[in-house]
Amino acid sequence: MKTKIYIKNIGKYSGQTITLKGWLYNKRSSGKLVFLQLRDGSGIIQCVVFKGGVSEEVFKLADSLQQESSISVTGIVKEDKRSPLGYELGVNDLTLIQMAKDYPIAPKEHGTAFLMDHRHLWLRSSRQTAILKIRDEVIFAVRQYFRDNGFTLVDSPILTPAACEGTGTLFETDYFDCKAYLSQSGQLYGEAAAMALGKIYCFGPTFRAEKSKTRRHLTEFWMVEPEVAFNDLEDDMDLAEDFICAVVAQVLKNRRAELEVLERDISKLERVQKPFPRITYTQAIEILNKKGNPTEWGGDIGGDEETLISQEFDRPVIINRYPAAIKAFYMKRDPQDPKLALAMDVIGPEGYGEIIGGSVREEDYDTLVLRIKETGLPVEAFDWYLDLRKYGSVPHAGFGMGIERFIAWICGVPHLRETIPFPRLMDRLKP
Amino acid sequence: MKTKIYIKNIGKYSGQTITLKGWLYNKRSSGKLVFLQLRDGSGIIQCVVFKGGVSEEVFKLADSLQQESSISVTGIVKEDKRSPLGYELGVNDLTLIQMAKDYPIAPKEHGTAFLMDHRHLWLRSSRQTAILKIRDEVIFAVRQYFRDNGFTLVDSPILTPAACEGTGTLFETDYFDCKAYLSQSGQLYGEAAAMALGKIYCFGPTFRAEKSKTRRHLTEFWMVEPEVAFNDLEDDMDLAEDFICAVVAQVLKNRRAELEVLERDISKLERVQKPFPRITYTQAIEILNKKGNPTEWGGDIGGDEETLISQEFDRPVIINRYPAAIKAFYMKRDPQDPKLALAMDVIGPEGYGEIIGGSVREEDYDTLVLRIKETGLPVEAFDWYLDLRKYGSVPHAGFGMGIERFIAWICGVPHLRETIPFPRLMDRLKP
Repeated sequence: MKTKIYIKNIGKYSGQTITLKGWLYNKRSSGKLVFLQLRDGSGIIQCVVFKGGVSEEVFKLADSLQQESSISVTGIVKEDKRSPLGYELGVNDLTLIQMAKDYPIAPKEHGTAFLMDHRHLWLRSSRQTAILKIRDEVIFAVRQYFRDNGFTLVDSPILTPAACEGTGTLFETDYFDCKAYLSQSGQLYGEAAAMALGKIYCFGPTFRAEKSKTRRHLTEFWMVEPEVAFNDLEDDMDLAEDFICAVVAQVLKNRRAELEVLERDISKLERVQKPFPRITYTQAIEILNKKGNPTEWGGDIGGDEETLISQEFDRPVIINRYPAAIKAFYMKRDPQDPKLALAMDVIGPEGYGEIIGGSVREEDYDTLVLRIKETGLPVEAFDWYLDLRKYGSVPHAGFGMGIERFIAWICGVPHLRETIPFPRLMDRLKP
Repeated sequence: MKTKIYIKNIGKYSGQTITLKGWLYNKRSSGKLVFLQLRDGSGIIQCVVFKGGVSEEVFKLADSLQQESSISVTGIVKEDKRSPLGYELGVNDLTLIQMAKDYPIAPKEHGTAFLMDHRHLWLRSSRQTAILKIRDEVIFAVRQYFRDNGFTLVDSPILTPAACEGTGTLFETDYFDCKAYLSQSGQLYGEAAAMALGKIYCFGPTFRAEKSKTRRHLTEFWMVEPEVAFNDLEDDMDLAEDFICAVVAQVLKNRRAELEVLERDISKLERVQKPFPRITYTQAIEILNKKGNPTEWGGDIGGDEETLISQEFDRPVIINRYPAAIKAFYMKRDPQDPKLALAMDVIGPEGYGEIIGGSVREEDYDTLVLRIKETGLPVEAFDWYLDLRKYGSVPHAGFGMGIERFIAWICGVPHLRETIPFPRLMDRLKP
């Protein structure tokens, strides 16, 4: 294979004459000098064009280049301690690939709607590039973690015949002679797979047709869902804690430069260490009431409440043992107190809200049938799921993490729309 | 975190008394001995229950266990050279978690429809478990390869406003006040991302509502699609070749035991080494004609033709420079011969057909508009895609690989339905 030279590896070519290809990110001129900021997706380098060092045509070209024009630049790699990269390029030659005229995203402030309309171009900004590289790192770290810990990836299907949690927020499609729904969770399939493979995770896009315009909602988002045979609630919380710490540590190790582009307060991420505080739902309500929030026992802990609780801690907090009445049908009840479900949520710090939701699953056949009926769901739709309770049922637990919420927290960005390459919102399906 | 002991790590506990939890895979009795095959998802171990070594109740229980019952077994780990694992367990104690009665998939032959109806249980068979573990390995190897080679993962959206390749085979859904379609390819989004990040790949589920029942079709399948700025056709073929060799090598390194379960002829995979033969479409037609196949220049190379061509080679073969008329609108024409598109397909050996399809993309604005119109597609639907040709357009190329076809070839299984945990076919949406 031919070797291309990328900016991030520039240090290997110090003192050598090389050719880089990319796009003009920014430009500064001052009489006899033109400073071109060249980006190639791997990094940004300053290319210095000195009037005396190049032909007249090349200097004229350099001076006339417009933002995002594609160019090929040849020059000598020089150490430069002032640059964040450590190097700059002393230009000998420059070739235009295409002049970009009137690039819509000028280096000035634009409104969000405008930027979202130009998402296909907005991705080129150093801020968006940094977020995408952190997203890539997070996703790889997630997969690496599960691989290193003996999990098998089991992709759950997107097209499903039945709804996991009610049909009100489902996208529906014709499927030949019947209807299919876009998956909201791979959990039920993950449970089947955990009975085959012991420790599994699924990780794919999930969908919610929610008429919600908050900054915490996307209609299409990626979710990772581990499921482990023989795990109890403590195991589930241990896994969530260990998993979060491992992923945060890998991002800190490999993506510090990108976190700095985002001006993220890294010290807050460095505090993400075991053990996480663990409180019961009942204790969470007490904290809320003490802080003047009127939520009563049995009520939902919403976004505002999560923020209030997270302020009490310097790292993620795990709330466990919720009222069964506000949790899903498949969650196992606490044998100590059947009003409670063996559920747990991990609440991110700094007001980022729930980043993980999990539970022990009801493994008793008769109890599960009862719960399905109580919830008003059709038992026949769960025939195969119930089979898991007939043929070697075992205790098991798992959780789900929406990857965009997690990335928003890591990056310190307020709105989920920046954490996914092409966000889908209630009022946005394009580009 | 509590440490659980899994069968695959059993060697660490040689001579020790341990407890394993799992399911009864198979059983054999002979008077004073019961041999339990215990599976826990990580492996299978033979547990030997000797009448004199346990209580009467435990022996009775062991003798009465039915297939797929969940149990907890305590015993001493003993080296056993006859077993594929190298160890067996001398049982001291045994606890029943749940007796499975009349597990539907007995160790006998079942019809395909029956097994597909019970896919949630069928996954537990050692053959299906082996395929899933190879799938896991392939997917990780794919991601590792791109990571190691400087690519950034950029997830393309599933819900899209327009079709990439015609609307006849699209799943449609209501999207609030408009219509959305399930993605058939992330390529157009990948091209936008490659202009931002240089080297990218997307890897997610894609959908085809094809009324096709062949063994090579799924309605939902996972596709990996790299896209690289400044790559030409040679680069594209080099990347495909290097990528396939790297993934095959990692599977051979880490999943030999699973390939043996599948009775795969490993020597055929070991032959997958660079360089792959490269022939033009025109040469491919000559080969076909010489072999008595009547396909004329300009005609499609279908599954049967791919098999005929693949028989000529002992490893994947790359066919390139197809007639432009039978390829997609976004493919760049060969400047040497505008009848040809700068496209390439990698054909798997042993009759597994096309495993990769790729091309150089048309980067000229006016030419691309012309191609869109020629194809009868609405230009306005491609406004953002055309923007990529206005603002710093550069030559670029990429390809797509359907991961299930690739896994089918690696595993040597004839039908794609076994290569994905929960297959979706024209007549199958459940479980």
